[in-house]
Amino acid sequence: MRLTLTALIATTALAGAAQADALRDKALDYFAPLPSTVPAVKDNRITPEKIDLGKALFFDPRLSASGVFSCYSCHNLTTGGDDNLETSIGHGWQKGPRNAPTVLNAVLNEAQFWDGRADDLKAQAKGPVQAGVEMANTPAQVEVTLKSLPQYVDWFAAAFPGEPEPTNFDNMAKAIEAFEATLITPAPFDAFLNGDDAALTEDQRAGLALFIDKGCSSCHSGVNVGGHGYYPFGLIEKPGADILPEGDKGRFAVTATVDDEYVFRAAPLRNVAVTAPYFHSGKVWDLKTAVTIMAESQLGETMSDQEVGQVVAFLESLTGTMPPVTLPVLPAETEGTPRPTAEIKVE
Amino acid sequence: MRLTLTALIATTALAGAAQADALRDKALDYFAPLPSTVPAVKDNRITPEKIDLGKALFFDPRLSASGVFSCYSCHNLTTGGDDNLETSIGHGWQKGPRNAPTVLNAVLNEAQFWDGRADDLKAQAKGPVQAGVEMANTPAQVEVTLKSLPQYVDWFAAAFPGEPEPTNFDNMAKAIEAFEATLITPAPFDAFLNGDDAALTEDQRAGLALFIDKGCSSCHSGVNVGGHGYYPFGLIEKPGADILPEGDKGRFAVTATVDDEYVFRAAPLRNVAVTAPYFHSGKVWDLKTAVTIMAESQLGETMSDQEVGQVVAFLESLTGTMPPVTLPVLPAETEGTPRPTAEIKVE
Repeated sequence: MRLTLTALIATTALAGAAQADALRDKALDYFAPLPSTVPAVKDNRITPEKIDLGKALFFDPRLSASGVFSCYSCHNLTTGGDDNLETSIGHGWQKGPRNAPTVLNAVLNEAQFWDGRADDLKAQAKGPVQAGVEMANTPAQVEVTLKSLPQYVDWFAAAFPGEPEPTNFDNMAKAIEAFEATLITPAPFDAFLNGDDAALTEDQRAGLALFIDKGCSSCHSGVNVGGHGYYPFGLIEKPGADILPEGDKGRFAVTATVDDEYVFRAAPLRNVAVTAPYFHSGKVWDLKTAVTIMAESQLGETMSDQEVGQVVAFLESLTGTMPPVTLPVLPAETEGTPRPTAEIKVE
Repeated sequence: MRLTLTALIATTALAGAAQADALRDKALDYFAPLPSTVPAVKDNRITPEKIDLGKALFFDPRLSASGVFSCYSCHNLTTGGDDNLETSIGHGWQKGPRNAPTVLNAVLNEAQFWDGRADDLKAQAKGPVQAGVEMANTPAQVEVTLKSLPQYVDWFAAAFPGEPEPTNFDNMAKAIEAFEATLITPAPFDAFLNGDDAALTEDQRAGLALFIDKGCSSCHSGVNVGGHGYYPFGLIEKPGADILPEGDKGRFAVTATVDDEYVFRAAPLRNVAVTAPYFHSGKVWDLKTAVTIMAESQLGETMSDQEVGQVVAFLESLTGTMPPVTLPVLPAETEGTPRPTAEIKVE
């Protein structure tokens, strides 16, 4: 079975269309195209009102104590849904511990954060707002802010009808999840999976075959080509401490199980070509280097330059089309709105 | 003449429409409605290609050394075109010296910055990119960044056809000016000036009459209700050092003329109700307080609560409608793109 696909598409025995069909059939064992509608999420029915509210919240810097950072700051929708920094810079110019993952298609990940410590985006959204090195705010303060802005109070009432106190921190997170669920980016790879042979170049098809044959798809599979399942970084050979810092033991912090030391969620690879730098440490800027490291550390494989190039070409076919995002117009502060503070609290 | 307008609209001798006409006629002596097309700017023909390029640059955090700040960071288009902070926070968590003015309608100001030290937006745009406390970058580094991104090179070529080396710092500024020229926000006040009596409430019309009668419109006039002309802050009575910090001598820094000590450009008042806090120091958050301080310090007038309320009502009629801004999709870094650095250089 191994090498079958690569051999298959290298041969001229089969006509182009038949080759593509065979590759597609095999790919569909591992991957799935993006859905054409906004995905449903658990315990949070998605409505237009919730999406609009969530968009406003996503862009609102007043969710941070300083008034400087919004969700958009580190999940920048102009640059692939991340911030293209090693690790994010937050409140007080502090550096975050891990590379910010893209928000694009994140709703389809099985869990959130590099260690999967949040079950879904509504749980995730509460993290950075409260993290001292990110937005440095508190749920209580966020609620005071939101309740001080009558337009938000109306928007929360429309998004969460029938609730006695809809303007609250939990609903903030749910609305943000609803907006983020709309950030789905169909890519040439989806067109290929959906039946368009011409959507991938020859190199990209060869890269896809290699991606499956070499075993990358054992971990990076599903609709997001990753984003589920936890694996030790350095399964075969541990990378150096420059790339895998010793202080960050990954999922061990969540499960306190020795087996989970240096275990991370397999990164979802959609839009990977536009979301450098790579790995939880953000230490690698070049996608070819990242592929080479993965092949060696996770699979014990040494790939040729040509193979690496083809896998990278395949990964580029995962760069999707952004849905158009029109900026919201946010309500102005009132007398009751807490003033921004740049102060760094020592805890 | 003085008090005529206020008396006029308080009387019942004239029918509503005739009152409105008289107020409009007087108002048109001082103000002008926004144009219905993108304003032409000096030495920079505005084209769709230039606007698109400028929009990309406006949102691109890679114009800053850290990769954290773009023009949008302090001129946030979701919150009135400014950052709603006393003074902006920039590179290394440093605080800027003055409150960030709104970018909305700024193309129609006669000069830029609080001290008018930039003639126009293309001159202005170069300032924050290079300021150590803002984006902390250099023209040479910006050019290396832009030239490393093939998509930008194409966009510059399309926006500046026929130029041998179009991808340069000057053209960056020109393109940003072109995008910013599209940020025009027609308001109820424009509808009133254009002939719609019902566009302003009774209180807003009374406030407009007061604004003219009391003398506010001596400095805050023209299409932007300010934004041209330089006046000492504290013409009649100097505000306290909390609001007018002694260290910032305003236009004196530009002209080195003693007469220009504590002289600032009269603030353009469009969207003032959504762009707190106020004054170059950003020390006043409440618009009523700001109006009261202005009346006392510039006009030697003590206004009643009702009068202040009416002037504020008029100022609220300057809150305009944002043009829809759809986020650009920016090109991904290449091997040649300078990496972001959070380091604070000591000069």
